[in-house]
Amino acid sequence: MTQTANQPVRLAVVDAPDQPAPSPALEELYRGFEQELLVPLWTEIGDLMPAHPRAKAVPHLWRWERLLTLADQAGHLVPVGRGGERRAIALANPSLGGRPFATPTLWAAIQYLMPGEDAPEHRHTQHAFRFVVEGEGVWTVVGRDPVPMRRGDFLPQVGWNWHAHHNGAAEPMAWIDGLDIPFQYAVDAQFFEFGRDRISDAERITPDRSRSERLWGHPGLRPVSAPGPQPGTPLLAYRWADTDRALADQLDLEAEGYAGTVEPGHAAVRYTNPTTGGDVLPTIRAEMHRIRAGAETAPRREAGSSVYQVFDGSGRVTVGGTTWSVTRGDLFVVPSWLPFSARSEASASDSDSGALDLFRFSDGPVFEALHLDRVAVEANV
Amino acid sequence: MTQTANQPVRLAVVDAPDQPAPSPALEELYRGFEQELLVPLWTEIGDLMPAHPRAKAVPHLWRWERLLTLADQAGHLVPVGRGGERRAIALANPSLGGRPFATPTLWAAIQYLMPGEDAPEHRHTQHAFRFVVEGEGVWTVVGRDPVPMRRGDFLPQVGWNWHAHHNGAAEPMAWIDGLDIPFQYAVDAQFFEFGRDRISDAERITPDRSRSERLWGHPGLRPVSAPGPQPGTPLLAYRWADTDRALADQLDLEAEGYAGTVEPGHAAVRYTNPTTGGDVLPTIRAEMHRIRAGAETAPRREAGSSVYQVFDGSGRVTVGGTTWSVTRGDLFVVPSWLPFSARSEASASDSDSGALDLFRFSDGPVFEALHLDRVAVEANV
Amino acid sequence: MTQTANQPVRLAVVDAPDQPAPSPALEELYRGFEQELLVPLWTEIGDLMPAHPRAKAVPHLWRWERLLTLADQAGHLVPVGRGGERRAIALANPSLGGRPFATPTLWAAIQYLMPGEDAPEHRHTQHAFRFVVEGEGVWTVVGRDPVPMRRGDFLPQVGWNWHAHHNGAAEPMAWIDGLDIPFQYAVDAQFFEFGRDRISDAERITPDRSRSERLWGHPGLRPVSAPGPQPGTPLLAYRWADTDRALADQLDLEAEGYAGTVEPGHAAVRYTNPTTGGDVLPTIRAEMHRIRAGAETAPRREAGSSVYQVFDGSGRVTVGGTTWSVTRGDLFVVPSWLPFSARSEASASDSDSGALDLFRFSDGPVFEALHLDRVAVEANV
Amino acid sequence: MTQTANQPVRLAVVDAPDQPAPSPALEELYRGFEQELLVPLWTEIGDLMPAHPRAKAVPHLWRWERLLTLADQAGHLVPVGRGGERRAIALANPSLGGRPFATPTLWAAIQYLMPGEDAPEHRHTQHAFRFVVEGEGVWTVVGRDPVPMRRGDFLPQVGWNWHAHHNGAAEPMAWIDGLDIPFQYAVDAQFFEFGRDRISDAERITPDRSRSERLWGHPGLRPVSAPGPQPGTPLLAYRWADTDRALADQLDLEAEGYAGTVEPGHAAVRYTNPTTGGDVLPTIRAEMHRIRAGAETAPRREAGSSVYQVFDGSGRVTVGGTTWSVTRGDLFVVPSWLPFSARSEASASDSDSGALDLFRFSDGPVFEALHLDRVAVEANV
Repeated sequence: MTQTANQPVRLAVVDAPDQPAPSPALEELYRGFEQELLVPLWTEIGDLMPAHPRAKAVPHLWRWERLLTLADQAGHLVPVGRGGERRAIALANPSLGGRPFATPTLWAAIQYLMPGEDAPEHRHTQHAFRFVVEGEGVWTVVGRDPVPMRRGDFLPQVGWNWHAHHNGAAEPMAWIDGLDIPFQYAVDAQFFEFGRDRISDAERITPDRSRSERLWGHPGLRPVSAPGPQPGTPLLAYRWADTDRALADQLDLEAEGYAGTVEPGHAAVRYTNPTTGGDVLPTIRAEMHRIRAGAETAPRREAGSSVYQVFDGSGRVTVGGTTWSVTRGDLFVVPSWLPFSARSEASASDSDSGALDLFRFSDGPVFEALHLDRVAVEANV
Repeated sequence: MTQTANQPVRLAVVDAPDQPAPSPALEELYRGFEQELLVPLWTEIGDLMPAHPRAKAVPHLWRWERLLTLADQAGHLVPVGRGGERRAIALANPSLGGRPFATPTLWAAIQYLMPGEDAPEHRHTQHAFRFVVEGEGVWTVVGRDPVPMRRGDFLPQVGWNWHAHHNGAAEPMAWIDGLDIPFQYAVDAQFFEFGRDRISDAERITPDRSRSERLWGHPGLRPVSAPGPQPGTPLLAYRWADTDRALADQLDLEAEGYAGTVEPGHAAVRYTNPTTGGDVLPTIRAEMHRIRAGAETAPRREAGSSVYQVFDGSGRVTVGGTTWSVTRGDLFVVPSWLPFSARSEASASDSDSGALDLFRFSDGPVFEALHLDRVAVEANV
Repeated sequence: MTQTANQPVRLAVVDAPDQPAPSPALEELYRGFEQELLVPLWTEIGDLMPAHPRAKAVPHLWRWERLLTLADQAGHLVPVGRGGERRAIALANPSLGGRPFATPTLWAAIQYLMPGEDAPEHRHTQHAFRFVVEGEGVWTVVGRDPVPMRRGDFLPQVGWNWHAHHNGAAEPMAWIDGLDIPFQYAVDAQFFEFGRDRISDAERITPDRSRSERLWGHPGLRPVSAPGPQPGTPLLAYRWADTDRALADQLDLEAEGYAGTVEPGHAAVRYTNPTTGGDVLPTIRAEMHRIRAGAETAPRREAGSSVYQVFDGSGRVTVGGTTWSVTRGDLFVVPSWLPFSARSEASASDSDSGALDLFRFSDGPVFEALHLDRVAVEANV
Repeated sequence: MTQTANQPVRLAVVDAPDQPAPSPALEELYRGFEQELLVPLWTEIGDLMPAHPRAKAVPHLWRWERLLTLADQAGHLVPVGRGGERRAIALANPSLGGRPFATPTLWAAIQYLMPGEDAPEHRHTQHAFRFVVEGEGVWTVVGRDPVPMRRGDFLPQVGWNWHAHHNGAAEPMAWIDGLDIPFQYAVDAQFFEFGRDRISDAERITPDRSRSERLWGHPGLRPVSAPGPQPGTPLLAYRWADTDRALADQLDLEAEGYAGTVEPGHAAVRYTNPTTGGDVLPTIRAEMHRIRAGAETAPRREAGSSVYQVFDGSGRVTVGGTTWSVTRGDLFVVPSWLPFSARSEASASDSDSGALDLFRFSDGPVFEALHLDRVAVEANV
């Protein structure tokens, strides 16, 4: 690599109040900077050090119906196997240069597996999860532990664990993948290894619960045989029945006059690592929010970005100045420090409760671990 | 207080190989020490700095049947209310000077409430729990949250929370109290306050689940509205159905060839604080152990002491050189660094499984927080 | 051991407002309790669960002059070596039953080594330190690293490190030992091993600084080669010159109008573990306090107990209701939750500054690790 | 903002072994992806999920002489004050698109202040430090505490503290700024506020030591008045005399046969936060390395990137396949996972010792906090 061939610094003398006075000497100085690969702060500070985050990502909405249609077409055209590794189709935020990044830190993709197909085993330092908005029939096999995936389940996958998937059903199945690929790409942290091309027959059994759930899925209990705190969760599946009940309990408590919800009509649970009580993955936070029929959340800004998927119900969500009507499966992005609010708006076709259930994941743990977290909640009018 | 009236130091010149040579001068020196309230290390080192803990407590067994009989007599003779506060009868280790201390750090008592009775509200820095070996009908009210108590339930109570009990049933009910009273007494840490004499009618409702369970009793989930890590658990009840299933799962995994048990035939779960994944109370560890019919645990020494209660089944337990046959409800003490092992021995009257279920609590968190923990496991012959 | 021979429980029926009504049935119940080694809470609660700590220890003062005289006599009568291990003479709080315990958790002793003497190598889980109020010439050898001891130096010794002492000077030398012997005795935690009978000639060299100081004694710097956080400090000596300067800096800052002191005229530094920033030992906190000439500290209560030694100056100290005039070397005890205050009172014989320097050690880390710490500061009148 | 105007996704059907077979249907599918702002994993995986980090940054060297010359020209042409805020000129890694980023996470700049000049007060969430390779005369004023800057000093600046600089000397002064600007920019975390336009006269006094040093600059000691652990260091200056002595001590210990250096001939210290013992800033690690004359370090790979500046001596450094001769002030970049080694090569003009002193800063704390750290050291041939 001939580094001197690189000459990417370009500096223009600008006649502006906050810039040095133009002069031939300044021109010469800037050419000197360019030659030595230097950039002065005074031409860049507005972009690099703004008063608050000016998100590079923009709010954007992807419709589930379109994603599913395209994923199904891919199911017929694109083989899954070594090389591509996964039939995953990622959201590309329109202002992140065409890269498959939903936000500067988060990857979100629809993954699709045809009946009988296998996604081969590999492992990587990127932390990952799967979330199922509809369907069932696929098993993910993590560390040789087969984990069934069904609607509403959240399935985290701590980095550097071997994993494969197989679809044992007669129907295709789609789900959402969330990873920290953009973050690990940005900081150059990622490692990857191929595993076995095919999982064994023993891993193709399809138990109702994974072994991880049998060890770690009991409330407030841990196996004495296990080691102490672990950076990521050893529990490989968080089942919808538990999540649903926890959300219902919060709204019931509120109705009875007790604390529990985040704000009136807004219940929320966070998936946690039972060995620490903290976030489920070192770089990714995941939560399920339920907004009672007719309720609306207060606009909230957070340093850090999120991706949401509508799990159930319908409503209107507002991100910065943009408002969308959303329904089951729709995905959207909330960039850093843009205010976000959601309103539940029952429609005729909705489930009985009329609540809006929003699955959310974010880069919150990165911000908290580095003491960069900030929140501002606006009074709800 | 006239401190000079205190003159408790008594020193004897001893003619022994590891002691200074007797002489009139040494006698005079020892009298000088006594006068100045001084004690030399060389007369005490064997007791104070032994090669390994030489427990002050001794192994001892209390039979449940006798405890229950005496508690019932007390129920008819001793009122519960302000002053005594609780009808609790504590185990007094025979070598701890007649004090109501099961071990140097742990208090264990049977508490007994007659039908319709109330134990008044108070709070104290001592951490506490209740464990129910049989019966139901009593509600403990912690921070105004009524918590039903039933067989097999573990109900922790972090220090300095207001709590009261009331028996809403037609029968008396007994249960076990565990506290760190001896520890807090030893280091002079304890505070205590009286609360209301009577709880309100609203607190006499008898819901099936406490509010704490509705917020915190869902596996791997936490309310987003709650603050971060807390020193003690916010979950007020750990139900038997969960504990039983977790133990059964471990033995099933073992039978299928997978890891999970502590050793062959020995399943164990630890009750945890869901906000940290650590022990449920800052000074007390609590666990449930299940020993499969016919299995025996390897002798194990730990720095620190434990109290066990047989929850179900029967068997033989060995503590140091002492072996007892035990059955439901029996309580016994394992002092520091004495080897402990247990064998399940099914009898005709036992439940189907024939397993021996042992509830255990210990001062493990004190030892771990101060980096004093040590374990030695002997090979099982 | 015939446990039934133990029968230490003694219960008396008492006719008092807060006790159950005397009756033959109650007498019989109490006899039943005694036989079964049971003690009811209602006869004990006042002692065990007081409104605040009612310290078992009492305030007491030991005069340095008397200690030194007795230690010197012991130097001529009591050999040091295997068996006694150390020529250490411990403070025995008058209300702790004649045991060599300054407080329920802390051991404080004067140790004395004659010219040319060695104290043999051993190790123990008890955490320890040495503090030198006068003299020099002894080296402590910790993990084969010789550490010189001089007036004002604080020399911590994390548990389970091999250590020996030798006096290379022509004069005897005395110093103070602080350990957590009573605490580890109370909870049955202690382990002990003998080391080499004599240290090698290579360990008899007498460098000015220990190797530990060369690695860890640079402000804000750590060796990259060292492992991460360690439970106790790797730094074996905290020199008086540093401590003195830190205290002087705080009083200077106060004089210039800046924050830094604990309260007006009261500077204080805590010895810390450079790998964590926390206390120097897992169970012992150590601090040096300087009270400016004429200043007085506000009465302060803490849960937990302390031992103080006057390092320099003179003054009056008040513990609970007791006040003493104190001068260099005097040692005294502050039991749990008794208010403590100190006043500097310069005398003609004092050093120029007239300040009162108090070395303090306490069981603070035990209380903080277990979330039992409490403080109350009274307004200074 | 018209988001549909954004259409940045471009996908090409490629005829390659690891890609789906070209077909009109695949073309149509890709056009559908583009329209919906989707990118499939199978076209990107090689770039996004490589076997190990393939650093976006490249190794590059900036000569101090050239930097200083250009900075001096800027001193005469570019005013310092509101708007530009600082006369700082940043290293722009040639493969990071002309942005002023030394690595994907780290900013490194030369800052230059003319005699009598002030850089106005501001604060920002970006963590920062200053390091002085030569000169003196500038005071940085952090939280109104004036801190003198001299050769060899390391001056950290935790995010969100007010700070200004002023040059009280008769000569210009240059130093190096290190910040986490690229990291906070990448994740959209940054906040910024303007402070006072001019610092007060009281802040223009020029004490020899800052107040922070008087409180926190004493080895192993902390003020009792200070709060507990803080995310970043409260110590504002780490002086060269301490750093130099710590490095010399390590090499002396090695020469005497004791542990202490990282590897033979290679001493290193890390600047630490005295309240935690950990890194000085939440996102930036800083160290000083000394390589003994003639010694060479083993090639070492780390996940994460570093910037080095030669503080003293001269030698040869190798980053990946690139080797440079370096001397005082030269700056170079070590991208993620490229092997780095350094050799000291004394030249006639060097200081007596002939050692090579390298100042280093890195994003290590980010990697460690998120459990992404990895190291591989190659055997030195």
